[in-house]
Amino acid sequence: MTTAVPARTPAPPTLHEIQAPVRDALARVSEELRRIVTADLPLIDAVNAHLLLMKGKMFRPTLTLLASRVGEAPAPHDVTLAAIVELVHLATLVHDDSVDHSTLRRGMPTINALFTHQISVIMGDFLYSRAVVELVQLGDLDVLRVLANATNVMTVGEMRQLTALDALAFTESDYEALIRSKTASLLSAACEIGAVAGGGAYRDQLARYGEQLGMAFQVADDLLDYTADAAVTGKPTGLDLREHKVTLPLIAALRTMSAASRREVEALFATPEPSDDQIERVISIVAEAGGLDYARRRGAEYARAAEAALDGLPDTPAVAALHDAIAYAMDRSQ
Amino acid sequence: MTTAVPARTPAPPTLHEIQAPVRDALARVSEELRRIVTADLPLIDAVNAHLLLMKGKMFRPTLTLLASRVGEAPAPHDVTLAAIVELVHLATLVHDDSVDHSTLRRGMPTINALFTHQISVIMGDFLYSRAVVELVQLGDLDVLRVLANATNVMTVGEMRQLTALDALAFTESDYEALIRSKTASLLSAACEIGAVAGGGAYRDQLARYGEQLGMAFQVADDLLDYTADAAVTGKPTGLDLREHKVTLPLIAALRTMSAASRREVEALFATPEPSDDQIERVISIVAEAGGLDYARRRGAEYARAAEAALDGLPDTPAVAALHDAIAYAMDRSQ
Repeated sequence: MTTAVPARTPAPPTLHEIQAPVRDALARVSEELRRIVTADLPLIDAVNAHLLLMKGKMFRPTLTLLASRVGEAPAPHDVTLAAIVELVHLATLVHDDSVDHSTLRRGMPTINALFTHQISVIMGDFLYSRAVVELVQLGDLDVLRVLANATNVMTVGEMRQLTALDALAFTESDYEALIRSKTASLLSAACEIGAVAGGGAYRDQLARYGEQLGMAFQVADDLLDYTADAAVTGKPTGLDLREHKVTLPLIAALRTMSAASRREVEALFATPEPSDDQIERVISIVAEAGGLDYARRRGAEYARAAEAALDGLPDTPAVAALHDAIAYAMDRSQ
Repeated sequence: MTTAVPARTPAPPTLHEIQAPVRDALARVSEELRRIVTADLPLIDAVNAHLLLMKGKMFRPTLTLLASRVGEAPAPHDVTLAAIVELVHLATLVHDDSVDHSTLRRGMPTINALFTHQISVIMGDFLYSRAVVELVQLGDLDVLRVLANATNVMTVGEMRQLTALDALAFTESDYEALIRSKTASLLSAACEIGAVAGGGAYRDQLARYGEQLGMAFQVADDLLDYTADAAVTGKPTGLDLREHKVTLPLIAALRTMSAASRREVEALFATPEPSDDQIERVISIVAEAGGLDYARRRGAEYARAAEAALDGLPDTPAVAALHDAIAYAMDRSQ
């Protein structure tokens, strides 16, 4: 049996390219973010300074700005909304790192590591409540509803993750529910509020696009934990396994692996601090049992659903960039 | 020199009496609170069940309901708003206890003690974001603005508390800023949104009343830590000193105490876990230096300002109860 050799695919788009149609607005998002979080208290400003350095690639605000430009109509408040989306994301990261006792994020010390656990909890509350204050200031109840719901859904997702007592009994549908609430909900909200800012014409499609993109994005992220070097991710490969987190590659692999392999996986999950060897061994088991291939296929399905959601949208530079964003999200798994 | 013997004052009003004009609505607040926090996740429901047991005397929702009835106009959503105020309060308590590593509140185990620290952080986020979702549902931007601002101010207050590096350098004006943001802001918001629900006619007065009441309430609470038995407060006397928290009685006493006494106070603050003897000794020093009397005087001043804010309001049962609420808040210090 022969398999077709796939044609060499072009290099996937970079985030820099995707951001081209909104480059100027994105620069103003950073300024706006700084304005919103400023407080008359040195400790808050010290934490802010670090957070603004940690500020990542601005993927979520990029989506908001692109979504607001789909119909090329005027989009008032687009920059403020994009900054608020990033702010909600930052607030979530601060609490996540605190809850997970993470010490590094994007190669930089986390707030709980650099300051204290107490400061992380209160600072997360400060950032989120500032986001709400700013949203109320804009006075758009539609946008408020979308972001408030997304934030609440994210907390339910976090609780879901804390609930899993028997990690290895976590099913694919548990996993889907988890990443839908933890990741896809905010990406969907980022796109939806952009659409609302841009006049609301493509709201449902862009919300659906954001959700499917978010699913593809998280599957790719979870794959990366099995495939990437520490230098690429800024975090050690196999970190999820080290922390006994079960993601799609392992869920899929558990369905087909041998009893002996399963015992090795169970041994890792029964070890409070698994060794590097144990982790390397389970990564191999997951790859051999087809877990990575399965997760790649599922990721590609979500990507196709995201593509489909863009059907019928006008042929504008923003829509082209949203298409590219799908390939960008997927490429993280290569 | 003779001092006048004060006439025997009548027993201060009980909370039960204050709640008389809103008793029926208050019962519905509990139901409403239950409805709002319910989620489709067993862990969330388990935490909720405990929180609803812990639920205190419902002082804040009582204020909202009373404020909504000042003019005896219809007050739509009064019960939901009162429930949301209590929900915001509960969310704050959950994070406060987690940040302070408290194990008991109102004689019951805290969420962080009964569950985990992680669950406390996420559960606080869940409760607060549910409150925002519910407020958005009501669709009143005025109410949203008041509660969002109060919540944000509360987080700044918490950060302020974490900032104090040299506890004994904490001034009365630092203390005022702290309790204004930590306590008075939410009591003020509770009254203000009640006023908005009741038609808005007495909004500014009731916001001012709530703020001054909140100041009196917190000063009384801080006095209680110096004067009450564990059986009354459900927490050991001198807990603030044990945790190196500086409140008004000590701030005032430090201004007049002898150098020798000050050295004893400094010794307590330099001891990570002060002994019961040390605490008892500093409580005596504070009392002898007039710290308790000073705090009682300041509390009475806030109480008079709260009374003054009610001037000119109609002569309704709700307003009578708001007057009584001042005496109730003060009585906590007796």
